[in-house]
Amino acid sequence: MEHQVEFPDDLAIRDAETTILLIVMDGLGGLPMDPTGGTELEVARTPNLDELASRSSLGMLLPVAPGVTPGSGPGHLALFGYDPTQYLIGRGALSALGVGFDLASGDVAVRLNLASLDERDRITDRRAGRPSDAEGRRIVERLREGVELDGDVEMFLMHEKEHRVVLVLRGSDLDADITDTDPQATGVPPLVPEALSPGSKRTADLMRSFLTQARDLLRQEEIISGLLARGFARYEGFPSLRERFGLGGLAVAGYPMYRGVARLVGMEIPGAPSSDEEAVELMASCFGTAGFHFIHFKAPDARGEDRDFDAKVAAIEAIDIRIPRLVELGANVIAVTGDHSTPAKMGVHSWHHVPVVLASDSARPTGVSFSEAECRRGDLGAFEGKHLMSLMLAHAGRLAKFGA
Amino acid sequence: MEHQVEFPDDLAIRDAETTILLIVMDGLGGLPMDPTGGTELEVARTPNLDELASRSSLGMLLPVAPGVTPGSGPGHLALFGYDPTQYLIGRGALSALGVGFDLASGDVAVRLNLASLDERDRITDRRAGRPSDAEGRRIVERLREGVELDGDVEMFLMHEKEHRVVLVLRGSDLDADITDTDPQATGVPPLVPEALSPGSKRTADLMRSFLTQARDLLRQEEIISGLLARGFARYEGFPSLRERFGLGGLAVAGYPMYRGVARLVGMEIPGAPSSDEEAVELMASCFGTAGFHFIHFKAPDARGEDRDFDAKVAAIEAIDIRIPRLVELGANVIAVTGDHSTPAKMGVHSWHHVPVVLASDSARPTGVSFSEAECRRGDLGAFEGKHLMSLMLAHAGRLAKFGA
Repeated sequence: MEHQVEFPDDLAIRDAETTILLIVMDGLGGLPMDPTGGTELEVARTPNLDELASRSSLGMLLPVAPGVTPGSGPGHLALFGYDPTQYLIGRGALSALGVGFDLASGDVAVRLNLASLDERDRITDRRAGRPSDAEGRRIVERLREGVELDGDVEMFLMHEKEHRVVLVLRGSDLDADITDTDPQATGVPPLVPEALSPGSKRTADLMRSFLTQARDLLRQEEIISGLLARGFARYEGFPSLRERFGLGGLAVAGYPMYRGVARLVGMEIPGAPSSDEEAVELMASCFGTAGFHFIHFKAPDARGEDRDFDAKVAAIEAIDIRIPRLVELGANVIAVTGDHSTPAKMGVHSWHHVPVVLASDSARPTGVSFSEAECRRGDLGAFEGKHLMSLMLAHAGRLAKFGA
Repeated sequence: MEHQVEFPDDLAIRDAETTILLIVMDGLGGLPMDPTGGTELEVARTPNLDELASRSSLGMLLPVAPGVTPGSGPGHLALFGYDPTQYLIGRGALSALGVGFDLASGDVAVRLNLASLDERDRITDRRAGRPSDAEGRRIVERLREGVELDGDVEMFLMHEKEHRVVLVLRGSDLDADITDTDPQATGVPPLVPEALSPGSKRTADLMRSFLTQARDLLRQEEIISGLLARGFARYEGFPSLRERFGLGGLAVAGYPMYRGVARLVGMEIPGAPSSDEEAVELMASCFGTAGFHFIHFKAPDARGEDRDFDAKVAAIEAIDIRIPRLVELGANVIAVTGDHSTPAKMGVHSWHHVPVVLASDSARPTGVSFSEAECRRGDLGAFEGKHLMSLMLAHAGRLAKFGA
């Protein structure tokens, strides 16, 4: 077939004054600890989510594809209607977003590892013994002050965590088609960054200059005496929610990474709340300034990664308590789901379907509680995460009829 | 965007020591004989499969696409993670696989029909009255001995069944872009094979020589006095399971066709068991020499094609008895499903969804028995057959996270 219609990219948008509220409970989906038990969500007491579910369309969301476990970036992009297999984020760019850096189109980002080198430039530790954050920040500060790049290129250097640092280069005609300098081995010197295409020659020259200066600066350091660069990524910019779906976005999240992904698709970021309670109040204070509202709760994922079933249950119950305050904001459409599953039984992100609640006046209710079991029987069936946005827009009266 | 990610082709594989066992009950899916009854699987007494199902993720597998009835080749390719709409097997190649012939990359295969021609070369019967297999084999033997091809080209000639014969040509620079010689009519002579592109001229010349010699040899035969050629196919070779999914494969099947499809994707074939019991013991004796193990049971399909509901029920029960022996091999992931449905009510392959059991430590159990009814309510929902491999790999801890 010649013309492939691929939703949600070819949605016909209709103007409306309606509001959508997407509540993401990170890592929501779970597993029973034994075959006869319930999942974290099934075990949790969630009267407010249950009330919402009883008047909602329910379903199961497949974050990316069967068997595919998404990272947080792809998981959220899918929820925002961006097919994560088409809208790819490079490692460098994701790191920059993760520390809250405001990437601009054309920026080249790269992950740097703080490393230990001997006097003959041979790597002795690729992670410099996993330094403390304070020590990492001290080194980044030295580099910021001591390294200078040519002419019109801006350099942003940010410490992530332990040995992990992000470098962003901003200027005209930068390109990321450059080889990594991390040889993935010790006893050998770092590699030299090489341009893989003529267009990236200038950026490779800049990187060589950066790395040479950095090594000279750090040579006398006892532990962190060098840098390894990997995952060069040019950030191209994504079309915004407004461009694609005709509505503005507002994102409230306590963790920079999630604000970063929201910013990627053009959402406004009203602040950086330091607790779930603050997040909810921030959302309440800004509600209605955009058509699309996204609020992020991190705890279910964190407790799942801790392998602590009971703590994840408690985290879900703690969010449930905040649901009435969010419901009373009066969004025309409320969706509650996760960006992926993080079963406490596994202690990591997983590929399992995530339950979805979709509340609106045009919902087709089927159940009485919010759980994997009820959502599996729900009206929406199992569907790919990238289609959630189409469903939210439809329930908000924001999608035109397809064809006459 | 430039890069189109198509799962399962772009799965990021992770090394692991885990094992997968795929148990295929050919033609498993069924239909009730009347609307109030159960399917073959629902009626069958299957305590061992039920026990497995009670601790498994359940779902319904759509072999290719809604409404599409797969042949055995595409049905199995899908189960092995090869999108059957992308990985096509030509008729000639499938016939060669069907008789257990070990196709090599670059081989050209073509289906030949034994036909009856009159003294003026006009076709009187395109199938030579569907000769007995013994008669078919006698003619093939005559052709093998009497026909000689030029120089460096090897010729393999195999009788399939009745009037059906397969010819494989092996040599350098062969091409299959050649017209059929079967005019699909009687009263006219066979067509001459014509090259459709310059690259296939040599192969077309070889075929003309082959067909002329064959006609001369058979001219005095009373019934089978000529050949018709159709479905020229060049076998290009498929990437192996190891190349695509990072693990070796081991296939145990009593029928050559299924060993052939497994060989297509690089699986090892430890033997040719002559009963289900032998197949299970062969699997037991080789288990663990590969990451992926496939065992094939033919009877449900055969009894379905016989239109014998009770016999298909009995065939399913007979396999159930062998399940404990397979379970005790200790695979980390066990999947049980079919390559398609073969409802006894219809007596042919059908497009209906096929129930799937997926047992592992990360399963999300929902039911107490193996049946269409329970699998329809299962956690996996309905999914395309090509995704089964992603799911098995995920449950085996063999897929990396997608994106950071």
